[in-house]
Amino acid sequence: MDREEALSLLRAALAPGARGAEFARVAKSVHPADIAAWFAELPPEEARSLLGQLAAPARAQIFGYLDAEFQALVAQRLDRRELGELFLHMSHDERADLFRRIPEAQSEAFLPALAHAEREDIRRLAEHPEGTVGAVMTSDYATLAPGLAPPEAIEHLRMAAPDAETIYQAYVLGGERRLLGTVSLKDLILAPSHARVEELMDASPVSVRADAPREEAARLVSRYDLIALPVLDERGTLVGIVTHDDAMDVAEAEATEDFGKVGAVEQLAVSLKGASVRHLYRKRVFWLMVLVFGNLFSGAGIAYFEDTIATYVALVFFLPLLIDSGGNAGSQSATLMVRALATGEVALKDWAGMVSRELAVAVLLGATMAVAVSALGIWRGGPEIALVVSLSMLMVVVAGSVIGMSLPFLLSHLRLDPAVASSPLITSIADAVGVVVYFAMATMLLGQAAG
Amino acid sequence: MDREEALSLLRAALAPGARGAEFARVAKSVHPADIAAWFAELPPEEARSLLGQLAAPARAQIFGYLDAEFQALVAQRLDRRELGELFLHMSHDERADLFRRIPEAQSEAFLPALAHAEREDIRRLAEHPEGTVGAVMTSDYATLAPGLAPPEAIEHLRMAAPDAETIYQAYVLGGERRLLGTVSLKDLILAPSHARVEELMDASPVSVRADAPREEAARLVSRYDLIALPVLDERGTLVGIVTHDDAMDVAEAEATEDFGKVGAVEQLAVSLKGASVRHLYRKRVFWLMVLVFGNLFSGAGIAYFEDTIATYVALVFFLPLLIDSGGNAGSQSATLMVRALATGEVALKDWAGMVSRELAVAVLLGATMAVAVSALGIWRGGPEIALVVSLSMLMVVVAGSVIGMSLPFLLSHLRLDPAVASSPLITSIADAVGVVVYFAMATMLLGQAAG
Repeated sequence: MDREEALSLLRAALAPGARGAEFARVAKSVHPADIAAWFAELPPEEARSLLGQLAAPARAQIFGYLDAEFQALVAQRLDRRELGELFLHMSHDERADLFRRIPEAQSEAFLPALAHAEREDIRRLAEHPEGTVGAVMTSDYATLAPGLAPPEAIEHLRMAAPDAETIYQAYVLGGERRLLGTVSLKDLILAPSHARVEELMDASPVSVRADAPREEAARLVSRYDLIALPVLDERGTLVGIVTHDDAMDVAEAEATEDFGKVGAVEQLAVSLKGASVRHLYRKRVFWLMVLVFGNLFSGAGIAYFEDTIATYVALVFFLPLLIDSGGNAGSQSATLMVRALATGEVALKDWAGMVSRELAVAVLLGATMAVAVSALGIWRGGPEIALVVSLSMLMVVVAGSVIGMSLPFLLSHLRLDPAVASSPLITSIADAVGVVVYFAMATMLLGQAAG
Repeated sequence: MDREEALSLLRAALAPGARGAEFARVAKSVHPADIAAWFAELPPEEARSLLGQLAAPARAQIFGYLDAEFQALVAQRLDRRELGELFLHMSHDERADLFRRIPEAQSEAFLPALAHAEREDIRRLAEHPEGTVGAVMTSDYATLAPGLAPPEAIEHLRMAAPDAETIYQAYVLGGERRLLGTVSLKDLILAPSHARVEELMDASPVSVRADAPREEAARLVSRYDLIALPVLDERGTLVGIVTHDDAMDVAEAEATEDFGKVGAVEQLAVSLKGASVRHLYRKRVFWLMVLVFGNLFSGAGIAYFEDTIATYVALVFFLPLLIDSGGNAGSQSATLMVRALATGEVALKDWAGMVSRELAVAVLLGATMAVAVSALGIWRGGPEIALVVSLSMLMVVVAGSVIGMSLPFLLSHLRLDPAVASSPLITSIADAVGVVVYFAMATMLLGQAAG
């Protein structure tokens, strides 16, 4: 069904006197993610009204695929009973996220309608700080006792299936909900019926702490090809799982975040398409202002060499090229390094080895650039200017590259995010270095100009 | 086990006269991904020798986690029989990748030892071009006939489990291996025993074409939270599946690739850590050279206004700042747009709406920068210079932003990769625009200088 058909179907279902039957029928054969995408084109009030035509489980599923802002807008329009029912049917991680976002007055109104265990579960999941594993994990996992035989265990998972995020990985718990191991449904199905869960389980499974950064969970799921990753508290108690699909969402969000940082835009709190002018302005202005203050240094450098410039105006032709070359060579190195540090491919201890290789690459790049620019230099300024420009180019590219490569390591070492080594920061440093190198070289080689 | 312990264990297992028993025991309790990481620190010959101490399935599993270059180095050292055995036990997608990478002489030596069906499977998977869904899919999926009852279907999956990448999703095939639907093991377990697979299956499952770009598979797995995505050929025949873990690898690789493009480094064929000086040089030199040629334009601009510059040398103080501001504002917009186009959040049709909002944001940013720089301008050059610099700043930031935002759309429209709108390209354009705007404005407002 294409977008036009979908929207006309929704409009028909919203018409006065329409019965929900037709929409409910279509909703059964369309993926909830697609229905959520259609809803995103409607006003929240209409989305609410359409959701009301569906059975509670289908409603909760579609609702879970709406993006966070839209969820909050729809939730505001639900009464206490509707909201309570929605919370009952949503997956545990999604409802905890929603809970964090609705006004306290509203949550206090519907919470008492939920059973004590549900309330506690929501509160426990919602209290983990944003950015931690705890904030992306879910508590609707399936557990098994160690002494069960495979047929009993499978029957147990069958009973748990409607309420569990996955039954393909089950968690074997000992006293105080301590994690003894994990067992897959596949292993249970393949095992002889006289075996026991504790013999089949992986007794040293990969796990993560709830207070670890969320990208750690994504990295582990990716590295070990997991369907779900168990999350433990500081005492080894199982408190949740991170499923493969949530791990993939985290990896994507982190990549987008690093992307923005390297591009010198702070993380948008909302989607780019939905971002307001004011929001975009605030996320971008900081790094641009950094440039202005960075210019205090390169401007001072230029002022110092004012006489040389006045004598050899041709030097100015190459100023944009020189400072941009340093900045871009630096951005290249920084980009490679930020991503390699983010994916865990390179670690802090690798710095020394990387810097010497970077030096070799930078000298080659700088020399190539110097040769290329020497032709331009002879054409526009004569052989003396060409020499100054070429030598400056070599030094500026080498300096830019080494700074661009080292800055992410330095930031990482200081426990700051390496992605802060963004283009404007490197550009500002490269500008100042470029100006000083260039004009100092010119003053030295061309002789001090008369004041 | 930490790195030191692991390496000393491996060294002991390699000592002359050592029996493999201890290493084989340890290998059972350690994740193959971790063993592969230890191996990466050894010479390929030693890795080969350690792999020889393990049973064939464990060997194939660890081998699958080695990175592509190392796999090829180890494979070169295997004889015909060993290589044939390895191919039998590797997962189908991994062995097709390896097949593409070993020399033809070697593959011709061991292929005849494999059964006809295996040979055909390897050839079919290996023939899909890099970058397509076909090149990342695997053919070891589990299939079911539509008429089976759930207990029969589960028994069928049980038999298929040792050879299938996953049994949690099964594919229901009709005549000529046409895909009728998909059914999950969960649904089979929950279903009453008198049901039939065809009643339980999802009859319009999400699928992808084998010749689609691989990022399409990653996007679908992420959007629909799939464990595995069926891959069809042009006639609707099932030819493979893409599992959630492979989809996550693709998403990561694509993000790294886009990251490199925006940072103006071509995709590295190998890992950053393993890349040679020569390889890094070749991947970086192109975009830096683009800058040199871009400078033909900004240099010409400066030459045209040479007289104005000679008269007002103070104008040069602000040249680095102005051109960098345009370039950085442009890079910010481009970064946001490239990522939003890559994740599918923004589509071509959104251009008009985005450009008008971008214009509003850019005017605000430009105005802020203009105010900030006017203080600098008065201090270093007096009120007239300050006026020129401020007005230029406003125009340069607006021009840079709109160019940075539109370029990814334009490239996408021309069916080129939007991530090519990298910093150096935008920098070069912004330089030329900045120089012309700045000095033209100066000539206009300060009056034509005497030649």
